[in-house]
Amino acid sequence: MDFSSFLTSLSTSFIIFVILMILFAWLSTKPGNAVVYYPNRILKGMDPWEGSRSKTRNPFAWIREALSSSEQDVIAMSGVDSAVFFVFLSTVFGIFVLSGIVLLPLLLPIAITERNAGIVDSTGKNAFDDLDKLSMAHLNNRSARLWAFMASCYWVSFVSYFLLWRAYKHVSDLRATALKSPEVKPEQFAILVRDIPYSSEGYSRNEQVDTYFKSMYPETYYKSMVVTDNKEVNKIYEELEACKKKVRRAESIYSDSKKEPNPQGVRPTHRLGFLGLLGKEVDTIDYCNEKIHELTPKLEAAQKETLREKQLASALVFFNNRTTAAAAGQCVHSQIVDTWTVMNAPESRQLLWTNLSKTYYAREIRQYVVYLIVFLTICFYMIPIGLISALTTLANLKKLAPFLKPVVDQAEIRTVLEAYLPQIALIVFLALLPKFLLFLSKAEGIPSESHAVRAASGKYFYFSVLNVKYAICRLIYTVSNLRFFVGYGLELSRIVPLIIFHLKRKYLCKTEADLKEAWLPAELGYATKVPTDLLILTIVICYSVIAPLIIPFGAIYFGLGWLVFRNQILKVYVPKYESYGKMWPHLHVRILGALILFQITMVGYFSIKEFIYSPLIIPLPIFSLLFAFVCSKKFYGFFQTTGIEVASHDLKETPNMDLIFKSFIPPSLNPDKLDDERLDDGGASYDLRPGLDAYAQTQDV
Amino acid sequence: MDFSSFLTSLSTSFIIFVILMILFAWLSTKPGNAVVYYPNRILKGMDPWEGSRSKTRNPFAWIREALSSSEQDVIAMSGVDSAVFFVFLSTVFGIFVLSGIVLLPLLLPIAITERNAGIVDSTGKNAFDDLDKLSMAHLNNRSARLWAFMASCYWVSFVSYFLLWRAYKHVSDLRATALKSPEVKPEQFAILVRDIPYSSEGYSRNEQVDTYFKSMYPETYYKSMVVTDNKEVNKIYEELEACKKKVRRAESIYSDSKKEPNPQGVRPTHRLGFLGLLGKEVDTIDYCNEKIHELTPKLEAAQKETLREKQLASALVFFNNRTTAAAAGQCVHSQIVDTWTVMNAPESRQLLWTNLSKTYYAREIRQYVVYLIVFLTICFYMIPIGLISALTTLANLKKLAPFLKPVVDQAEIRTVLEAYLPQIALIVFLALLPKFLLFLSKAEGIPSESHAVRAASGKYFYFSVLNVKYAICRLIYTVSNLRFFVGYGLELSRIVPLIIFHLKRKYLCKTEADLKEAWLPAELGYATKVPTDLLILTIVICYSVIAPLIIPFGAIYFGLGWLVFRNQILKVYVPKYESYGKMWPHLHVRILGALILFQITMVGYFSIKEFIYSPLIIPLPIFSLLFAFVCSKKFYGFFQTTGIEVASHDLKETPNMDLIFKSFIPPSLNPDKLDDERLDDGGASYDLRPGLDAYAQTQDV
Repeated sequence: MDFSSFLTSLSTSFIIFVILMILFAWLSTKPGNAVVYYPNRILKGMDPWEGSRSKTRNPFAWIREALSSSEQDVIAMSGVDSAVFFVFLSTVFGIFVLSGIVLLPLLLPIAITERNAGIVDSTGKNAFDDLDKLSMAHLNNRSARLWAFMASCYWVSFVSYFLLWRAYKHVSDLRATALKSPEVKPEQFAILVRDIPYSSEGYSRNEQVDTYFKSMYPETYYKSMVVTDNKEVNKIYEELEACKKKVRRAESIYSDSKKEPNPQGVRPTHRLGFLGLLGKEVDTIDYCNEKIHELTPKLEAAQKETLREKQLASALVFFNNRTTAAAAGQCVHSQIVDTWTVMNAPESRQLLWTNLSKTYYAREIRQYVVYLIVFLTICFYMIPIGLISALTTLANLKKLAPFLKPVVDQAEIRTVLEAYLPQIALIVFLALLPKFLLFLSKAEGIPSESHAVRAASGKYFYFSVLNVKYAICRLIYTVSNLRFFVGYGLELSRIVPLIIFHLKRKYLCKTEADLKEAWLPAELGYATKVPTDLLILTIVICYSVIAPLIIPFGAIYFGLGWLVFRNQILKVYVPKYESYGKMWPHLHVRILGALILFQITMVGYFSIKEFIYSPLIIPLPIFSLLFAFVCSKKFYGFFQTTGIEVASHDLKETPNMDLIFKSFIPPSLNPDKLDDERLDDGGASYDLRPGLDAYAQTQDV
Repeated sequence: MDFSSFLTSLSTSFIIFVILMILFAWLSTKPGNAVVYYPNRILKGMDPWEGSRSKTRNPFAWIREALSSSEQDVIAMSGVDSAVFFVFLSTVFGIFVLSGIVLLPLLLPIAITERNAGIVDSTGKNAFDDLDKLSMAHLNNRSARLWAFMASCYWVSFVSYFLLWRAYKHVSDLRATALKSPEVKPEQFAILVRDIPYSSEGYSRNEQVDTYFKSMYPETYYKSMVVTDNKEVNKIYEELEACKKKVRRAESIYSDSKKEPNPQGVRPTHRLGFLGLLGKEVDTIDYCNEKIHELTPKLEAAQKETLREKQLASALVFFNNRTTAAAAGQCVHSQIVDTWTVMNAPESRQLLWTNLSKTYYAREIRQYVVYLIVFLTICFYMIPIGLISALTTLANLKKLAPFLKPVVDQAEIRTVLEAYLPQIALIVFLALLPKFLLFLSKAEGIPSESHAVRAASGKYFYFSVLNVKYAICRLIYTVSNLRFFVGYGLELSRIVPLIIFHLKRKYLCKTEADLKEAWLPAELGYATKVPTDLLILTIVICYSVIAPLIIPFGAIYFGLGWLVFRNQILKVYVPKYESYGKMWPHLHVRILGALILFQITMVGYFSIKEFIYSPLIIPLPIFSLLFAFVCSKKFYGFFQTTGIEVASHDLKETPNMDLIFKSFIPPSLNPDKLDDERLDDGGASYDLRPGLDAYAQTQDV
């Protein structure tokens, strides 16, 4: 690539970014769009524009806001996990800035002033163009100038160690602060017990768990909730909820129809058959009300039966103080250690209920099977894609779907299809991959959503790094350096969600609930965001000394990412769960992995340059391993569990154990519907879904 | 080796064994020898011959006694560790008996009836003699008879799995029973805390530990004992104790001398210089009494100073119930997990005090350095031995030590020395090796004696197995099959300790304490006994299918070993500590290792025999790995720590926390000598050294 075309492409995408930013500034001030640009604030019951100057339409106002927001704001709006994501972005940004400040002024002049004999490559053309003159490749073999590049390797490494160490310490403090908070958090009073052995004494599971834990914790044990097989009850519950929604929709349509010339209105109807297109036509409101009437007692019966008959071999056990719960979640309880296995309970909203009752060895076997599948996917993913491409050649398409023939026979469409069919197959595969990996991670038997996301993210990262060719093609000099401006512009301006929201509002939404569903934002999606960032980090850090010009682009990518996502996290995205920074060790290890890859690459590169002092670089990967070892021994244990020191901090109030217990009951076994002893009605509840509750309050007002 | 010489050698050593057994039956009935043959019973305050018929001088009576003793007897006399050792011996014995019952009648006829073409080896001589006809080597390549040998491999493997599984379960039960015993065991109320961070708040270590744990365990925390640097106080204490002993000795000599013609007696004297041979002559009693007078206040001052000024960064922390202590020993306490590291406390008598204050990273570094040293020792141990042999050739000896010349010049001595000098160097090395390995294991920073012994035993095993040539030479067909009879005979008859005891009694012992010191038995010495047994097991199991005739010898080795050591454990050896069976996982893994080695050997051997179905044996090592995995997941965790379920069993009495605390005070900081608050006088004590205390009682009576 020559320098001018590089600059053209860079400035083009920068201009697109600026246009999108101006668009964002304009669109976000319109009150009708507030639910698209400020959903997180709205859900928290805050005024969207409170304290902000966005109304001035200054396209840079959001930058000022993002920069002036503190870490405490992020934690308050979006939790510790989001704060940790910013620590990651700022740490990597810091590494690139500190590296760039030294490497650019040092290495670029050294490289460009080297008198190179003009190495001629095999094609007979001079292999170096403008950009390459600025890289280590331009140096002569055995040049004394290589010393500067070696020193740079040490600089980049030590800057990374320093910032990573500070970051790990900081994240550990964030986690500790959150865990020792005086707020009552239900999951801090519970442990998850799995692999409950078969009891021969004729106890029910409930009695068995109670007896077992009461004998060990006579004073602090509160109650247990045995995990049940909820498949049937969930099905009835969902059917019931769907009916209720349908009734509300139908009533809204009916009342709307009354306002029009016809004051009687038109009662909505639907058909019972396939997709509502065939079969008998019925009055929707009457039919659904009848169905609700029919399903409600059925659900109650199913709930009772489930609680009594479908108890599985795992349970949530509650203690009336969090120190005991934290300790109990870490201890070996049984003499046979593959029974009564315990862990600190995850939040109730991120429990993967169907995984809880998988047995120890089932989990182990599933894990290894999944690893094998992922390994095969990484190695051989081109095979199914190739097959699909082969099957979907135009000739085959025409044979398989003759009705497409008139379309396909048009010359332009034909050209496009022929050129892009294989790429489309690849794109579809890559789009589905994260979902597939998340599905696999859940199939491992992992008990919590956040853990599954971490596992999927790890798999995605390995896929990216190990398919180096794909990764390099996709990222270096194309996505990573140029197009990410466009991506950030789209992220910030939320053009696509905005259009979808307005279309839905116009044509589909009938009730308030429909409308809310239309704008309710997704979570950030760490499972794909994090591996992509890590991949870019890996590539930039690997080339940082070889071609230092890449560093500013890495810095811009992470710096701008920090700004854009700071805005999005504070105003848009609503996290689905909180894992108190458990993502960090995962990130830390992979950043270090990237660093080691860089160091090993450099060992090789110095050897290629025939630099006789190249062994001097060998200590670097050893330092990195030592650093990883020390960090893991010093910090990691606290991310796996809750230190007693932290859990033993005082609470601001005596915990209401009944509410804590209820917060873990899955919705299909809803307490409001049952008169079972353990499920009696309660007035308040612990704020598990702050967003939704706060929204409900604002709606009431 | 031909068959007749084999039989001769076998019968010779058997006859020696029988002679030694008769000698044992005769000697052990003499009352004067009771302290040599029944020290364990005497120390427990029991009648040596109580309930036994040894007085009948029936040389087989001890066998009946050993066979009729129950596991409970062993635990009562010698603890769980000894019982576990017998589980090991009987499991291996069982493996060999069950294998032998099937393999001998099946394989020997198959091997001997094979019409072998008479393979002629490179020396031109028929390579097979009588014994070899009974082995797998005698089969023709690709013979269908190899199927029987393959089936035998499966039989041996599955017999091993079955017995090992039963044994692991049984040992786990033994451990659980001991740990849930209603007796108060001081170590179950304590945890060992290391890596206490530096406190900037001006607290003393004691206050720091108290504050930290009191906040987490407000109701169950009792007290802490900060580990101190006892080097100086130990030195003074030992000096004082030596003086006291000297006084007692001198007084005894003085009073003895009075009985003789001279009624005034002769006051013993000694010289103050080098080894008591040079310098001023002083009256021993006066001199030592004066010294005691001088040292006692010095010791008290040193004790106070040590407790106040020399507190180190580790502590024993006591809780007033064992459930909390068991839980606290397993939990992550601190946010920074390389500080405040905890573990369940070992018994006070096996604490390695000087290791307790080693910091986390010091322990890690020491561990790796020790591993490196052991690795180098295993690989290159022949080099120092070779050097020593070279230096100690006769010519060199004469040069270095001219005074030896007249001895060395004698023809017979010269021949012997020339032939055996290198072997002597090797023997000396091998004799010192276990001590060296134990020293290295302690240098790793391991906090307890039993753990250090396990570590040393592991290292010794690797040394034996990896130096295969040395191992095979030493054991197969020489030690393992023939000479072990002699070894067992010597063990049983205790000829050597008997002679040493009588010599000491006659010439050295002056006081009761001296006498007791002379007969006080050692412990069994698992650090060398176990690796030797494991090595023999490895060799026998590896050859079990190739040469099934080895199996009976293996069975006799372990069966006879069981009998002899049952006798010795019940009557002779006094264990120095109790680890509640923590040795078992160590044994289990190594037995499985031997099995896998056997299976891999067989894969190779079947391939050499060009047996086309040899891949059918490949599943076996995989089964073994799976078996190891399941065992480790099912049982191992409980051997690393104390399950809460087990610790929460009721005690028969409220524990006296003061006594528990005192039982951990090292002798040099003896409570009787100090009026410090934490060290006030107490009347009773928990039975930490049951042997010694019981002995003291019998002496009083």
